[in-house]
This record gives sequence, structure tokens and C-alpha cells, in this order.
Amino acid sequence: MGIVLGTHQYGKAENRVVRIYRDSPRHEIRDVTVSTALRGDFARAHTVGDQSAVLPTDTQKQTAYAYAKEKGLRAVEDYALALARHFVDDVEPVAGARVEVEEHAWERAVVDGVEHDHTWVRRGQEVRTASVTVEGTGDDQQVWVTGGLKDMVILKSTGSEFSGFLTDPYTVLQPTTDRVMATSLVARWRFTEHTGIDWDATYAGIKALLVEQFATVHSLALQQTLFAMGSAVLEAYGFLAEVRLSAPNKHHFLYDLSPFGLDNPGEVFHADDRPYGLIQAQVTRDDAPDAGPAWYGYTGLV
Amino acid sequence: MGIVLGTHQYGKAENRVVRIYRDSPRHEIRDVTVSTALRGDFARAHTVGDQSAVLPTDTQKQTAYAYAKEKGLRAVEDYALALARHFVDDVEPVAGARVEVEEHAWERAVVDGVEHDHTWVRRGQEVRTASVTVEGTGDDQQVWVTGGLKDMVILKSTGSEFSGFLTDPYTVLQPTTDRVMATSLVARWRFTEHTGIDWDATYAGIKALLVEQFATVHSLALQQTLFAMGSAVLEAYGFLAEVRLSAPNKHHFLYDLSPFGLDNPGEVFHADDRPYGLIQAQVTRDDAPDAGPAWYGYTGLV
Amino acid sequence: MGIVLGTHQYGKAENRVVRIYRDSPRHEIRDVTVSTALRGDFARAHTVGDQSAVLPTDTQKQTAYAYAKEKGLRAVEDYALALARHFVDDVEPVAGARVEVEEHAWERAVVDGVEHDHTWVRRGQEVRTASVTVEGTGDDQQVWVTGGLKDMVILKSTGSEFSGFLTDPYTVLQPTTDRVMATSLVARWRFTEHTGIDWDATYAGIKALLVEQFATVHSLALQQTLFAMGSAVLEAYGFLAEVRLSAPNKHHFLYDLSPFGLDNPGEVFHADDRPYGLIQAQVTRDDAPDAGPAWYGYTGLV
Amino acid sequence: MGIVLGTHQYGKAENRVVRIYRDSPRHEIRDVTVSTALRGDFARAHTVGDQSAVLPTDTQKQTAYAYAKEKGLRAVEDYALALARHFVDDVEPVAGARVEVEEHAWERAVVDGVEHDHTWVRRGQEVRTASVTVEGTGDDQQVWVTGGLKDMVILKSTGSEFSGFLTDPYTVLQPTTDRVMATSLVARWRFTEHTGIDWDATYAGIKALLVEQFATVHSLALQQTLFAMGSAVLEAYGFLAEVRLSAPNKHHFLYDLSPFGLDNPGEVFHADDRPYGLIQAQVTRDDAPDAGPAWYGYTGLV
Repeated sequence: MGIVLGTHQYGKAENRVVRIYRDSPRHEIRDVTVSTALRGDFARAHTVGDQSAVLPTDTQKQTAYAYAKEKGLRAVEDYALALARHFVDDVEPVAGARVEVEEHAWERAVVDGVEHDHTWVRRGQEVRTASVTVEGTGDDQQVWVTGGLKDMVILKSTGSEFSGFLTDPYTVLQPTTDRVMATSLVARWRFTEHTGIDWDATYAGIKALLVEQFATVHSLALQQTLFAMGSAVLEAYGFLAEVRLSAPNKHHFLYDLSPFGLDNPGEVFHADDRPYGLIQAQVTRDDAPDAGPAWYGYTGLV
Repeated sequence: MGIVLGTHQYGKAENRVVRIYRDSPRHEIRDVTVSTALRGDFARAHTVGDQSAVLPTDTQKQTAYAYAKEKGLRAVEDYALALARHFVDDVEPVAGARVEVEEHAWERAVVDGVEHDHTWVRRGQEVRTASVTVEGTGDDQQVWVTGGLKDMVILKSTGSEFSGFLTDPYTVLQPTTDRVMATSLVARWRFTEHTGIDWDATYAGIKALLVEQFATVHSLALQQTLFAMGSAVLEAYGFLAEVRLSAPNKHHFLYDLSPFGLDNPGEVFHADDRPYGLIQAQVTRDDAPDAGPAWYGYTGLV
Repeated sequence: MGIVLGTHQYGKAENRVVRIYRDSPRHEIRDVTVSTALRGDFARAHTVGDQSAVLPTDTQKQTAYAYAKEKGLRAVEDYALALARHFVDDVEPVAGARVEVEEHAWERAVVDGVEHDHTWVRRGQEVRTASVTVEGTGDDQQVWVTGGLKDMVILKSTGSEFSGFLTDPYTVLQPTTDRVMATSLVARWRFTEHTGIDWDATYAGIKALLVEQFATVHSLALQQTLFAMGSAVLEAYGFLAEVRLSAPNKHHFLYDLSPFGLDNPGEVFHADDRPYGLIQAQVTRDDAPDAGPAWYGYTGLV
Repeated sequence: MGIVLGTHQYGKAENRVVRIYRDSPRHEIRDVTVSTALRGDFARAHTVGDQSAVLPTDTQKQTAYAYAKEKGLRAVEDYALALARHFVDDVEPVAGARVEVEEHAWERAVVDGVEHDHTWVRRGQEVRTASVTVEGTGDDQQVWVTGGLKDMVILKSTGSEFSGFLTDPYTVLQPTTDRVMATSLVARWRFTEHTGIDWDATYAGIKALLVEQFATVHSLALQQTLFAMGSAVLEAYGFLAEVRLSAPNKHHFLYDLSPFGLDNPGEVFHADDRPYGLIQAQVTRDDAPDAGPAWYGYTGLV
């Protein structure tokens, strides 16, 4: 019986790259946090301390910043594709590369009713995410792309029920036919193609669909809303294989005002922090190609 | 020489109150974190453990939720005024009350181009703040109101310089005539009146002015921008005595791409976390009435 | 081509359970954050909103608190085992249960050199973690247990090198034979048994080994240190199958004091926040049994 | 009526300075976050953008790192004194300087029962704080020093009551004669001298007293415990003028297990996040010298 090195990866996490386009007076901005991880046989670095196959994480950082200039930084998926391919194609010991991007959105400042050329206010509504995984070179190269969003906080003040659930001796919850439902949505989708896609338009379209489904589906449970969200996205975008959703149920508890002689017909709530329900679901095509390493992240080992 | 109790206050911090108005199909929502602190002579609770003059912090919490129904929760200043007055007017040992509110803004979800009646997406751009301090009762009652915002992240990609500064033997910084300037602005303003003011419209107007000044002032230093912001607000709103501004200089360092043979004329930046410059300034009328306890917060003792 | 529900799970996250044992004047305390997730066929909740198979997340919460009394809360692994088995054994639609625990450690306050009976100070050094996954009932029941820690911040001021690494055109990093090495370690280990183990003693022993290896291995790279840590743990504990390690390289950059005529032979550093290197590795026995769902967490879907 | 600049200050916040002493094989470490602010007449920077009196915040940063070498970094109070005096003494436009330090404590790793020479584990129990304010030069120079701690989380599982409190129509809280009391203590103390004090020993002594009082005082209210803490410190240290304490009441709610037929005599609690009670008190000598700017921090304006 021996002790051996198993799965391993290494990289530079959370590079804070900001790219300004200033070719005309109307500047453009892209603001991202990008993380890279390299995969392959780096066993000798672990077992005997031999770094000769190890491209430093500092080099990965330099490349992330340099590529924002050399290859540009527009749609985050294109930027991640360029970076991931570079590590696999140009650095010999690298068998696979993982690049993850979070985009921090800005909206133009408005001055006298007009959008300003070079001033922006951070738009905090949600964070756009993307990942690219590349394995192999030449004709054998495989590429997986996911897009997504996180921290999209959304709430509806009616149109949500929760009743008819299973009970056991530890159940004290009362059913309700009208409650506040709120979540901080994480959604991720897997592309089956990675050329010819308008990444930014696709992102905007998916986000609009997610919001629309949340608003318009009369919800019998958060589970139902999630499935409706994922289905709507898959119906609209044929180049997506699956959607994964993670939704904390941010509980808004109806406050008991009866000790004070006050009625409270769904008007005053306490927004609780913890604990929270957490619902996770994958909505997928029944003929979706295998996900491979698409969901294995740069922090994925533990 | 004796050891005595000095300044003291106590209250309930960070009540998470959400108020839905559902009198028509088009609901309204207000979502706040409210903190209360009571002031007066509570010395015996400290020195001998006698609670007979102490209204529990739990009661303060109950009142915060109950008042969202009884008095309503629309403009945060009005809600804070009602709460603060109640504690001073109705609870005998209370000589002064401090109420602070942070409002978490929501914007209506848009479905098919139309704003939805009962679904909202959290708008993360900034947090609106307000404080009310009330002292005394009847004709002797004094009231101080402040409004404000925090976490407004704003950036301009040109129109900002920093040069001509003082140097000493520890100075290595090079002057620049074109840099990225970014901050996460905290601004607070003190009202001289508290009746007849359209709080929501005033907030929107001040925020627009702050953004406009940031965008349009060609900045020789963040200091200059802050003073211009504060001055513009005081010029526009005669019922404000002063504006206080706190602005971290969120450094965007031009990334050195020269080792890679790349030019970088203000295009690729590293957004650094720490340390950061921090500029704080008060802009005031020269005849402003005394601030009294207006700026002494519920966490103010340490 | 159809759209179907794929993997799904749901539960209650981050229940903050504190258990006091007060059977004698010398109290004991256990303070945990526990999260539960149920797995099985809950498809109808998603597809048609039928909750009849859904045990509410509120019930899972109630059970987590009730079990702290009914079954007790001593070693976190035992508590998690009891909870996970209950959901699978006693709730019919549940095919699998995942319970994760984080323990917040307290140490007894010392008064006049003596440990106090009922007062503790939070010991912030690291967070102990554990997970239990149970699938099936009766003779077919399978159980996976992992232990671990996170947030263990550890630093050595010498005895660490990084040189001889691969270079490419984006490499500017200089090799070093003496640097500060620091990390905030995450380690998790998988048990092959779950009866007859002294969980608390095992945890203490593993933690000591991790610290010892970090201290005594002359490190040619963080990779090497991680492998030595994992190997030492596996050598000492025959009932462990594998160790997984995730180590951010918390960069301590030697500060350039030369502009001020000061030498800096490894004495003054800037502790940088982001980006950071991130090294992840699995150290495993070559005959380790399959991990099954051991590493699939309650937040695992996205 | 004119608009003028009022109070203002500027500096560099959160410099992350780590100092290693390696003159012998047994290294020493000090790890601090230091923030500086300069005060004086910097009006022209605000009003006309003239930087000629402005020492850059970058220079303040350089000095903070350089002084860790030039002057050393042992007791944080001494380090802060050296930095603050330098800015006032050596930089002409500076009338006053504020330096605040937070120290992140490390304890030596233990290997085979022996403390290691150059490896440490972060001790997370609490953060030591200090501030120095210097105004004027030469014989007119005035110095204020405070010490303190924050994030000391402490809990007692009995020996705490809360009853006999004032009630009003919004009071629903029931009195209790035995509860869990927990807080995350902030304490700060003001020195009346700044020479000849053993800062490190004083810190250790005060911390021990705070813990001891929390443990041994039978508490009728958190207010009473705070006053006892402050009094004990003032009685022990004649060179302290006052102690300021801020204590969130981290509520541990007894969990209602009665629906499950379980008794809960102070054994199972829910540790709630928000809201929380907040008690603040100053304990002072009745002949304490005026605090001057001792409590006016680098973030103090808003």
C-alpha cells in the first residue's frame, strides 16, 4: 500500500483586471476578477520539490493582465477562451487550463439626462460569471464554456405558496397560500458551442428570462420556480445543454403584531439572515452531451 | 478620586424590517435596517444592576416593527422621526433617542417591457442612510435629521490628475496628469428643517448632483472633487447646513506591461484592495447652526 | 428532445446550534453551524409543484436543534451521523442525506490561573469541519464521513524557497531561496470507518501533524509542503483513505526600502490581499476505496 | 452666507505591514494593519486643487513600511508614536497626525511539545488596537495614546440574569434569572502617560481583567458587567483616564423544544445574527483630563 498524489491543480486566484477602451472620447470599461488554474502532471513539484515543469502563478497573473491588452477584454467568455487556450497551447507541461471570470458591471453616469463618456457608477445588481476549460491541443482540443450570474437578489410580495408538504413529528411549520418569496440567485448554464455566439446578448436574454419566470410563475414552491426558470432558458437557447440553479430561500417571516393589537395581513416582515433554505437543481436536455470537466472549478478540490 | 459612569447609550441594532404596501395590485416595498439607541440616566443599571429604568432592547425591536405598520414606512426620515419621538415622548426615563436607518433599494422587475406589480430586483448601487436624534419633550424638544448614502462606487477613466504635491525623503510617487479615479463614496448631509421636506425627491436630487460633479469636474485631486460635490449640494438645497464626505481612493494602478513589449497608455489597470487613500472633508455654510448630537451615532462611543 | 430535471437536493443551511452541558457545575459547550440537504426523487415538487414528498427545510431545522438534545452534541461527526441517518431511515422519500458541520471552538476563560467553569473565550484559530453522507437503509445503507479544518492561518519566516521554475515570455518573477510562506489552510480527510473512532483525538492529532510538517519541512514549494502534510497524516492514521488540501499562497512581498537607503534582508513585508496563488492537491492511498458522494456538498451543484 | 471647507483630514488606510526580527534563529513577528491621517490646513487642495502642501498618501504608506525597519516595530504604541511624531515634526504643513494600528496576533507553532523558532499559527482570539494622536511641535507638542481590543468573543452559560426592567405596551420580553450571555467585546482605554509604560504587559493585564470580570461578576445586566470591567481596569492601572466599552448582546435564544416533547433547561440555543442589543458605556475617573482629539479617528468625520 502506497501513498500517492492524486488530483491536483494550481493557479492564481482573483486577479483584479480593469480594462479601459479609450480609442474615442466615449470610453468603454470592463472590470473583472479572473482566476486561472493549470492542470497536468505536476507531481514532481509535490513529491520532490522540482519546479521545472511549474509555470509560476505570478506568470499566470502577468498573462491575465497582458492578455487584456494583447487579446482585448470585451465579452468575458472570449477573454477566458483566449487565456485558457494560451496556457494549454503554449506551455508544454499544461494538459488542461481552467479560467473563471466574474464581471463587475458599471453603468454610465447620467449628467443632465445624457450618458457620460468616461464616468460610471457601479451597478450592483448581480455579478456575471463565466468559466472556460480547455484540454488537449490541436485536433484533440476540447473546450467547455459556461456562463452564469450570482448575487441576483429578487423578491415577490405575493404569488407564492407553500402547502401540502410532508409532515413528521418534527414538523411545526404551518402551510401558507400567500407569502413573500426572495432569493439571491446563482444560475449557471453550459454551452454546447463556443463560436459564433453573441455572449453579451445571450447573457442579457437569459437574465431577462430568469427574472420574467420568477415574476410570472405562480409559485407553489421555490423548486417549481427554479425548474420553470431553467426550462424557459433551455427552450430559448438551443446552444445550451443545461442550467444549474442554486437558490437560498431568504426567509421573510411575517412579524407577529398581535400583542400590540395590530393586524398584519402580509405587510410587515422580518428579513432573517440564518438559517436559510437552500434549493439546488439542474435542468437539462435529455440528450445533453457529457459535462466533462465543465463544472470542476479552480477551487473544486475541497 | 472616584470612578464614575460617563457617557452611555443602549439599543437594538440592525433590525431588518421589510414593509409591503398591498392596498392595490401594484404593491410597494420598503426594505430597511434600523437601529435604535436610547440616552438618558441609566446609571443604576450599570452601577447596581437595577433595570427599573431600562426599556429592553427587545421592546425597541418590537416597536420598530410595530411602527412600520402603525405609522407606516415610506420615506426613511419620517419613519425614523416617528420612532425617535416615540421613545422620548412616551418612555419616561428616555432623555434622548437616536434612530439610524439604512435603506436597501429595490427596482421593479421588467417583464415584456413593463414594470411588474409585485416583483423586484435588488438595486445594489448604493445604500441610502438617515439618522434622527431627538432630545427633550414638549416645547423644549430638539430634533436633528441627517440624510446620506454609502457604498456608491463611482469611477472616471480620465479627467483626473495628481501632481505638484509636496515631496519628502520618503516620496517615490510620480505625478500624473491622467489617471483613473475611483471611490466608494460616503456622503451625509444635515438638515436644518424637518417638516415640509420631500425626503425622497431631495435624496434623488442630491445623489444626481454628487454624480454630476464627480463626472464633470476636471479633478486635480480627490480633495477638489469632494469640495465641489459638497458645494453643489449646499447651493441647491437651502435647508441643508453641511455635507460630510468620506472617500476612499480605490487605487487603480496602471499595470506595467513593458516586460512583454506592450504599450499601456491608460488601458490596463490593477484594482488594488489595500491600502487605500482616505479623504474626509466637511463642506459647510459659514453660518451653519451647531451640529449638536446630529453626528453622534448609535455606535459612536468607541 | 426533452427538458428534464437532473440532479437536485434541498435543505436548511447554516443552523446556528449551541449546546450547553450543565449536568455539573463545570459546564461544557459545543457551538456549531450545521447544514442539511436531502436527496432523492423530489421531481414532482419541481415539475408540478406537488410538495407531498417534501419534508420542509423548517422541519430539518427543528430536527437539528432537537437532536442536539435528544441525541446530544459532542463530537461533530457523531452528531452529523445521527442526523443524516435519521433523515434516511425515518423519512420515506429521502434516499440520501448530507449533513455538514462547522465547529466554532471555545476555550475556557482563565481566572486567577484556573479554568473557569462556565465562561469561555472564542478561540479563533481555525474552524473544524465534518460531513456525513448516508444513502440507503438497512443492510444496504452506506455511510461516508469526512473531517477537516479551514481558516488555519500559518506562516513561516524562513525555510521556504521557490526557484528553478519554468519560464516563458510572461515570466518576470525572480527565484528566491528564502521567503516568507503563509497560507490559510483548508484540509479535509476521508474516513474509511465510522465506528470506534475517537473523533476529537483524531482531529487534534491531525491538526498537530499538519502544523508540524509545515514547520519542519524545508519547503521548495508550497506544493511540496502540502504533499508532506497529507502523507504524514495518512501514515499516522490507517483509517483514512485520503487527504485533500487547498492552500492559498498568502503573498508576503518583501518591501522595497532601497529608495530610502535602507537594507531589507527579509525583515519588512507587505501582506497582500489579492491575487493569491492557490494550490490544491489530493494525497491518497493507492488502494483507497471509491469516494462515492463523500465530497459532494450541500452547495455542490453550482 | 458662504460655503466653506470645515474639518478635513486625509491619509493612507490599512497598510498591511509585517515585521520579522531574525537576528537570532528564534525569529520574532509583528503583523499589523496601520492607518495614518494628517490634519492641518490643506484647504487649497480642496478649493483650488493646489497640492503643494499635500504629502501624498503614498508617501505616508512608504513611511509606514520604512519605519518598521528604521524605528522598529515591537509594541504597537511605540511604533504609532514614532510615525505620528514624524509627520508632525518633519513635514511642515502637518499640524496633527493620527495613527491607528490593529495587531494580528500569532502564536508559535508547537512541534514535539516545543515552540518553533520560525513558524506561527494565527491566534484569532481578538485584535489588539492602538491609536496615537500628536499635535504641535517642540514644547507645545501634545500626545494622546489609546490602547484597546476588539472582536473578543466571550460567553458565559450561567450567572447572568435580566429582569425587573421597565415595560410598556410594546414589551413582550419575559424576565429571566438564568441565561446565556455572550458578546464580541470592543474595549478601548486612554493613557494619561506615554513614556515608561510596558505596553505589552499592560495590554495582557487589561485583557485578563476584562475576562475575569466577565466570568466572575454575577450579571444582572450586560450594563453591569461592562461597568465592572471598566472599574477593575481603572483600579489596577493608575495611568489610565478612562475605559470605553461597546458590547453587542449576541443573543442566544433558548430553543423551544416543547412541540417535540423535550425539556430544554438551558441546554439548546439558537445563536442569532441580527438584530442584536448594543450597550456602550464610558467608565472614567472623575478627575480625568480632557480627552481632546484622543477619540477622533481616521474615519471619524462621517
